[in-house]
Amino acid sequence: MVETAKPEDPPRDAASGDERYGLREGEVAAALPEEFDASLYYIGRIRTPWKRREECPKNGRESDAVCAVELDPRWAEGLSGLETVSHVLLLYWMDQARRDLLVQSPRHYAEKRGTFALRSPARPNPIAASVARLVRIEGNTLSVIGLDCLDNTPLLDIKPYFASTDSVPDAQVGWHAGRTR
Amino acid sequence: MVETAKPEDPPRDAASGDERYGLREGEVAAALPEEFDASLYYIGRIRTPWKRREECPKNGRESDAVCAVELDPRWAEGLSGLETVSHVLLLYWMDQARRDLLVQSPRHYAEKRGTFALRSPARPNPIAASVARLVRIEGNTLSVIGLDCLDNTPLLDIKPYFASTDSVPDAQVGWHAGRTR
Repeated sequence: MVETAKPEDPPRDAASGDERYGLREGEVAAALPEEFDASLYYIGRIRTPWKRREECPKNGRESDAVCAVELDPRWAEGLSGLETVSHVLLLYWMDQARRDLLVQSPRHYAEKRGTFALRSPARPNPIAASVARLVRIEGNTLSVIGLDCLDNTPLLDIKPYFASTDSVPDAQVGWHAGRTR
Repeated sequence: MVETAKPEDPPRDAASGDERYGLREGEVAAALPEEFDASLYYIGRIRTPWKRREECPKNGRESDAVCAVELDPRWAEGLSGLETVSHVLLLYWMDQARRDLLVQSPRHYAEKRGTFALRSPARPNPIAASVARLVRIEGNTLSVIGLDCLDNTPLLDIKPYFASTDSVPDAQVGWHAGRTR
């Protein structure tokens, strides 16, 4: 419990620029496996107004900034039909995050919790999943609202967001429920 | 337009057992990059009742089957606190899917569309994102409802699902809107 609680801060999937700190009190790290199992392509970059982690909004719903999702031209033909969706699910790679943390004390929470109960960027596979509103598509660039990540974050995937399977309005996160947003 | 439309079939993120077919009429493939940019650990396996792709439900909401998310013991401590959530966002690796398709004619749609307008497993980084209801956690195994993937699918991540940022009940997918479910 070395951090002061800031209960107004909701969790975030932001790419982190300063995640390679040492362990805080109560944090636990795993020994990482000796080999990887699969590999990723960066298919583009996400351009945002935020150059340092401290500048990022606390989560994607806290900012109305229009961000640019720049898909590499190699993949541009894959956007066909996406102009008909209102929201996209973006996967991106939080390349600054450490991958061995099992129990974490995020700066904005007093308690420590398991990595899989958090949306912290530090996780075995630092893939963020964020829902964003699609404003427009021009060429191979999407303009979206609802991201909180650092400028130049590597893009992994763009998916159409289906309310029928992706939206659960009454979902609960018990440990977070008592907090003010 | 080589496929018969089956408009009752919604899109799915299923891992595919037979995805290495040749191109269908109208499909377009990209030249894949020569190098990968990042690497993944398989952190567990998803056990489901479905051994072949044809057996999988059409999407996760179509089945009440309880599936087991088996986290490798190495990461088990990371589950602390997850028992308080009602729903999880699971990321998993569709290791049978081809990665070069830009325009696809899924079996259950008449029209061809860009990869990023579809939830097809075939995409540059074949990562599926599925929301599942958490039934219980015992040791390092989660019991969940709402998956549609093949048995033994590699697990990449477990995240708590936050309605505040992940749920958009009125999101629209225009190209899919006229279909019957």
